[in-house]
Amino acid sequence: MADTVLIPRLTIIGVGLIGGSLALALKAAGAVGEVVGCGRGKPNLEKALELGVIDRYERDPVKAVAGADVVFLATPVKTLGVVTQQCLPGLKAGAIITDGGSVKEEVVKAIEPLLSAGIHFVPGHPIAGTENSGAEAAFPSLYHGKRTVLTPTGNTAPEALGLIRKMWQTVGSEVVEMSLEKHDKVLAAISHLPHMVAYSLVNAVGSYDHYEENILEYSAGGFRDFTRIASSDPTMWRDISETNRSALLEMIGQFENSLAELKADIDTGDGEKLFEFFLRSKQLRDAIL
Amino acid sequence: MADTVLIPRLTIIGVGLIGGSLALALKAAGAVGEVVGCGRGKPNLEKALELGVIDRYERDPVKAVAGADVVFLATPVKTLGVVTQQCLPGLKAGAIITDGGSVKEEVVKAIEPLLSAGIHFVPGHPIAGTENSGAEAAFPSLYHGKRTVLTPTGNTAPEALGLIRKMWQTVGSEVVEMSLEKHDKVLAAISHLPHMVAYSLVNAVGSYDHYEENILEYSAGGFRDFTRIASSDPTMWRDISETNRSALLEMIGQFENSLAELKADIDTGDGEKLFEFFLRSKQLRDAIL
Repeated sequence: MADTVLIPRLTIIGVGLIGGSLALALKAAGAVGEVVGCGRGKPNLEKALELGVIDRYERDPVKAVAGADVVFLATPVKTLGVVTQQCLPGLKAGAIITDGGSVKEEVVKAIEPLLSAGIHFVPGHPIAGTENSGAEAAFPSLYHGKRTVLTPTGNTAPEALGLIRKMWQTVGSEVVEMSLEKHDKVLAAISHLPHMVAYSLVNAVGSYDHYEENILEYSAGGFRDFTRIASSDPTMWRDISETNRSALLEMIGQFENSLAELKADIDTGDGEKLFEFFLRSKQLRDAIL
Repeated sequence: MADTVLIPRLTIIGVGLIGGSLALALKAAGAVGEVVGCGRGKPNLEKALELGVIDRYERDPVKAVAGADVVFLATPVKTLGVVTQQCLPGLKAGAIITDGGSVKEEVVKAIEPLLSAGIHFVPGHPIAGTENSGAEAAFPSLYHGKRTVLTPTGNTAPEALGLIRKMWQTVGSEVVEMSLEKHDKVLAAISHLPHMVAYSLVNAVGSYDHYEENILEYSAGGFRDFTRIASSDPTMWRDISETNRSALLEMIGQFENSLAELKADIDTGDGEKLFEFFLRSKQLRDAIL
């Protein structure tokens, strides 16, 4: 089977939930030869090795990417440019770099100018995740039934795009292509905005000091479920807020208008409008169940 | 055991998730003699009878409450005054009315003026629920480990309060007492505000028409979990918005300030402030896990 394997050598930079789950899923599908890990934390790499997420690791990015057919960048969004720069000297001709960053315009702006001829880049984003992180959090079915967005640019080679599309399909993901701008707006709406709202909600309720106790302690299952995403990594969300600034500001504006409409209906006690507002929302929500 | 049973006859007005689960839990604990159901929908009452949620039912509220020691009102918040009025002629001296309404000041204002001597009222609110409704949704462990808030007024008899406290403790709930005003503010913060935010979020994202497709279809698990509560009953939330108006407007204002602070930090790209904002929220959220 060695000559038909999809990716003879894969290097994962950042062996956490996202990178580790891709490695495990490709291994389970028999679609990868050797998986090499690279990242800042040696204990995490040792753990990844022990769990069979990777076959070996290198601390030096140049050594890690040597001979790699595909290099998957799964480090925080703001580091992707620097990480690419560190890998470049070690890449073989024809190597494909791809990434899993939650923001695409800024990432492409950081990476594309660095590339030399014969090195390909396919910007991507698997829309999947949990609130856990690190190699231990990785599991092979993470991408199963989830969507992966690829955002090819004018510089993306069709064969490289085709291989990365195949890679994500192999791990059970539905692949869709869209422009960088559309990706960043859609993600701002369905992921980045909800996180901003959850963080703001927890801060608003948690800092309400009218009573001498923390009223968050009265919260039941609904509040806890609703605010689960406010437990996400602050560094990651700082980076996303900085790199997807304009799309996020637009979506926050949309949300503020929606809430202002509802607030006005509550203020005037317009039962009919309130019912319509809630019903419209319920119908939209039920349609994506 | 018949002479030591906590509530020899219990009438449930509105045999849905809330009323039905109380009946099932009291039966499981051997704390109730007969359970009589009453409500608008005959098919639901038949189903409740078949499932053993109630022992019999009466369509006429006067007949339903005859001989009842405790009458539990579990109909929508805005109906509680009218329902009380319909029951009153049938109540025996010493009967206790209690309710499960999510708003307390308006409910007490609607019910207390109707009461005659010898009829007790204990305003209450079990903080529990699921997005399902009807007798079929009821299950005996709904209140287990949850909090029930009782909001006695100057008119509440201590013995009546004691019995209702015992009733909720018997079904596994922790009982806390607070003022009507505090209840309504706390619930506005931890329950009513999150619902308004979820409804507004789904409307904002669902009505974004920059692209020719519904971008909600890209939403992954996070968005779906986060907006689950936007699938709740529009009528119930219209009623809550109308009856807890001032506390809810105050909490929406708190939230708007919190979101405005975050938006300003995104706008200026202040990474340090963004990190602090997300971290504060994560710490508050993790503390209630």
